[in-house]
Formats: sequence, structure tokens, C-alpha cells
Amino acid sequence: MSISGYRLNDPSLPPSPFTLEMLDELKASLLFGPDDEAALRRALPIVSSQVEAILDVWYGFVGGNPHLLKYFSDNNGKPVGAYLDAVRARFGQWILDTCRVEYDAAWLAYQDEIGRRHHWTGKNTVDGHATVSHIPMRHVLALVIPISVTMRPFLTKTGASAEDVDAMHAAWVKSCLLQLTLWSHPYVQDGAF
Amino acid sequence: MSISGYRLNDPSLPPSPFTLEMLDELKASLLFGPDDEAALRRALPIVSSQVEAILDVWYGFVGGNPHLLKYFSDNNGKPVGAYLDAVRARFGQWILDTCRVEYDAAWLAYQDEIGRRHHWTGKNTVDGHATVSHIPMRHVLALVIPISVTMRPFLTKTGASAEDVDAMHAAWVKSCLLQLTLWSHPYVQDGAF
Repeated sequence: MSISGYRLNDPSLPPSPFTLEMLDELKASLLFGPDDEAALRRALPIVSSQVEAILDVWYGFVGGNPHLLKYFSDNNGKPVGAYLDAVRARFGQWILDTCRVEYDAAWLAYQDEIGRRHHWTGKNTVDGHATVSHIPMRHVLALVIPISVTMRPFLTKTGASAEDVDAMHAAWVKSCLLQLTLWSHPYVQDGAF
Repeated sequence: MSISGYRLNDPSLPPSPFTLEMLDELKASLLFGPDDEAALRRALPIVSSQVEAILDVWYGFVGGNPHLLKYFSDNNGKPVGAYLDAVRARFGQWILDTCRVEYDAAWLAYQDEIGRRHHWTGKNTVDGHATVSHIPMRHVLALVIPISVTMRPFLTKTGASAEDVDAMHAAWVKSCLLQLTLWSHPYVQDGAF
């Protein structure tokens, strides 16, 4: 089943202004190395069977925080179910893509696109729903924590050793910060990113 | 001994455009609550006696990454020792202030000032050294990881339980992301933060 608005590896996306060399430097800045890539790949089969349960936790968090739920809502503050559903399908795929670690030029182009979809330049252009037109950058970045803290219990569920859970979790945190940093690109002044 | 350029609680700093209500929402977005504040306060006496050793590790990391060391260097790529020293004194104080958790309006004003000192609007205005004029936002945000990963061994050194080390470390990670997010404010388009 194709996921509406999912564009990883879509050659019609504009290329990212960000090069693979810049990506390598950014990985070095956050200590993201081959061991982390391997750990995320080990997490893939663990996480794959739990995607809906993970999304239930994340949606519970957003739903319980009115200052976040409003970005999934219309200008009268009413949550837009069809938008919540469309984002959810892409978010589930994003969990898997994060663990596959194919972080190449096509992936960079899609990170830029994901960033635009949070910023006023791109929000609501994908699904056509009339939700609030912009998610402040600070709340995008902050999501690193809830989507990391809540991941640990899922990583423990299929019998991995405590040491391996730690490794997978540490890699997950780094990848989330890497990605949410890239998503902040459309928010930043020219040349400041 | 006073620390050159250290301006927490300096009433002559411009107030932050960020309100305490916005700070509370941001704390909620990253699950930073009273338990985290208490954990950081427990970390204060542990960390206080190890500040120089922590800074040695952090400076070793920066020194080992030419793409980061260049922001402590002049335009010919030569590290500026007096700038490295001036930043170090403030960074040590920052470790303590992070654990004191007095995150109020004066603290917000200083976060904005710290952000400006990384951005072209304020870098080099404090110490007057001729270093590269801007640190890209992506590398500022990425620092959350090295300054967190490296903190754990120091938290274990005075006999806290594994559970308490986990709590202090989790609180530290959240506070770092909170602060580095605030530091990114000067980089962002008007209204997008």
C-alpha cells in the first residue's frame, strides 16, 4: 500500500543544498558512527513489529499536550482527524527508515522536504488539510526527547541484552537529533544553518 | 574571581522575547519536569568537583574535530588560545548553572545572549578575539550529544546508584537540548522559532 505524501527516493524532489560531506561532519559532531548504524539495523526487526504501538504512545503524548495538539488542528482548535491519520502513516514509515540507515543524497532531499512540511512554506501542501500553518521550530527540536524516551521499552521487548538495548537506544537518540536538526533547515536565516 | 563575559543575572541584558509561559510549554514538549530539576540539583555536588576534568574531555573532543576547532580559530585556521580559555571559563560556570536549575527570566535573557555569541550577530563581540565569525546552527545543536554522552562517567564517580545516575543523566540530556534549542533562536527567521 502506498503512503500518501511519502517521498523518500522520489527523484522529482529538489536536491538538498546539504552535501554528503556536510552530513559526514554533522555525524561527527554528534558522534554518530558505524557502530550506531549497525545498532539501528539490529533494532529494525525489533521495532518493525511494534510500529503501531509506538505510534499509539507518541499520539497519546501529543494528544495530552494541547500546545502540541493544536498543530494537528484547524484554526478553531479542532483536531483534524484526516491530517492526524495521514501524518501517522508517514511517521510509521519514518521509524523503519530511521532503522534502515540509508542516509544518502535522496534521504537528505527528503529531510529537507519533511522540514518544509513543518514550516509555513510547506505545511498543509501535502495532504491539503486546513491545519495551523506552522509548527514552531522549538517544538520540533524538543520532540527528540519524547520520541527517544518512549522508545526504550519497545527495544527491550524481544530479549536483547541490556548492553545492546543501550547501544540501540543511544543510536536512536543520535539519529533523531540528526534528523530533527536537518528538519530545522527551512526555519533558519540564509547562511546561518 | 569574576568570569569575563559571564552575564547571568546581569540586569543590563535585553530581556528575552521568550516568556516563562513559553518556557513551560517547551519544558512540557521535552518532558522536563520537577523530577528532572531535582535530579540536576542532586548532580550539582557531584559535578562541581569535576568541572575541569569534564572540560578537558569536551575540549579534547573539539580539538580532535577540525571542522569544530575551526570555530575557535582565526580565519587562517589557527586556534586562538585566549578565546578557547575565555570560553572555557564560561563553559565551566555553565555546567554549574545547568545543575542549579534557576531557569527564570534572567536565565532566558542570558540564553538569548549565549545564542547570539554563536551567531554572526554576536560572535567575537564579548572577548574581542578575531575568530571565525559564525558557528553554524547545526553544529551547535549537535553538541547535545557529546556533552551528554561524556557526562555519564562523571555522574557515576561518587557512588550514586545506577538508577540515580540514569535519572541525573536523563535530566542533563533534556536540559542540554532545552538550552541549545534556546541558543538557536537568533538563527531563525522572524516568527519561525
